[in-house]
Amino acid sequence: MKSISDISTRAPDGINKKESKIELKKLHRRLFSLQNLLYAEDKHAILIILQGMDTSGKDGTIRHVFSCINPQGCNVKSFKTPTEEEKRHDFLWRVYPEFPEKGMVQIFNRSYYEDILFPVVHDLIDKKEVAARHKLINEVEEHLQKNGTIILKIFLHLSEEEQHKKLEERLTNPEKKWKYNANDKKESKKWDDYVSAYQQVLDGCGKNNPWIIVPADQKWYRNYLVATTVVETLEKLKMKFPK
Amino acid sequence: MKSISDISTRAPDGINKKESKIELKKLHRRLFSLQNLLYAEDKHAILIILQGMDTSGKDGTIRHVFSCINPQGCNVKSFKTPTEEEKRHDFLWRVYPEFPEKGMVQIFNRSYYEDILFPVVHDLIDKKEVAARHKLINEVEEHLQKNGTIILKIFLHLSEEEQHKKLEERLTNPEKKWKYNANDKKESKKWDDYVSAYQQVLDGCGKNNPWIIVPADQKWYRNYLVATTVVETLEKLKMKFPK
Repeated sequence: MKSISDISTRAPDGINKKESKIELKKLHRRLFSLQNLLYAEDKHAILIILQGMDTSGKDGTIRHVFSCINPQGCNVKSFKTPTEEEKRHDFLWRVYPEFPEKGMVQIFNRSYYEDILFPVVHDLIDKKEVAARHKLINEVEEHLQKNGTIILKIFLHLSEEEQHKKLEERLTNPEKKWKYNANDKKESKKWDDYVSAYQQVLDGCGKNNPWIIVPADQKWYRNYLVATTVVETLEKLKMKFPK
Repeated sequence: MKSISDISTRAPDGINKKESKIELKKLHRRLFSLQNLLYAEDKHAILIILQGMDTSGKDGTIRHVFSCINPQGCNVKSFKTPTEEEKRHDFLWRVYPEFPEKGMVQIFNRSYYEDILFPVVHDLIDKKEVAARHKLINEVEEHLQKNGTIILKIFLHLSEEEQHKKLEERLTNPEKKWKYNANDKKESKKWDDYVSAYQQVLDGCGKNNPWIIVPADQKWYRNYLVATTVVETLEKLKMKFPK
């Protein structure tokens, strides 16, 4: 896979902000209908994995792309720092029960990929263990795909400058202050280490389950592209109401 | 409480369908913002309990009132026929883990009230057990309220004629056929028994946690009234972004 540092974090030329926002509203309506059909047809499950640096907009993407969907057909699971109990198990133990049943859309806000990223950046596991985790992830993803789960892995691609701006904003904007976490500043100093860990994750995935790189410096483009990707994926399934 | 048979299942005079639909869109936008504030403030949880006869529109209410909310801040739990494992426990065992944490909106599609309704209609428990379940429910609800959970119990009030129409529609409309369940027809013959069981449930609730009766024959009014109730409840909390 291409080096992520060579991929733009901004919208390509010729994409218009105003038009994309109008288009997003149309995509919302299509997603609302497609989710109903997914539920009625009861053949596939959708798993959307959102990864990205801190402040890359994982929460915002969920809020602005999926606040149109029937919450009865959509679950969101945020994977935070593992609890003491979770740490006593293998890294997939807390994840497995969260895989979606047929008819459902499941969104992972972070995922088991954190179990490669974080320990690699903090030097907690060796190369052999990284490779073993990667191998298992690929196998589990293929197994899910064979069983009717469509997996969309989305990497929100943010620039370092934009992260600095956003961390600053959390300190000054009264509506964003509650999001501030002293740890974010600390982790942001490890930017280059994270970039290289992400590169490893993007490169390590099988051909059948590649990552979708979404430029994330501009929220409007990020939302538009994620919504388009999800809607097009659902439309390709050519779903029908059962007889 | 007034006899439910004396309460209309239709919108009151003077309420306009077209205006209510426009109003619903405004309510969606307010709910979208209020949910964000609820999550940021992190002081209260919202528990919305939807009950009503088969076809009264519990699924439709969730779809049309809450398809505007950030799915990261909202969970829906449908309580179906208890599994073999669930039956080996007391009736609250499967419910308790589903109570919402602070900042979250939790919707119960059916609830522990089914554990009074169904056994009463099918004569599976005696009066003493009914009273005991009611007492426990009231105590648990008060305990949750004291701990910051706002409980909205909504009874979707449908007429018997409208239920017949809807069951018929499920047999003929190709987009609704997948909802058809042979059991619904069987249960619909026990209409009067369900009415009297519901009356018992509505009467048995404490002053602090009464039911809200929502006329449900017309979907547009049902959606409008539920959305209004939820938005007004959230606005009364006078929430603020934390400093």
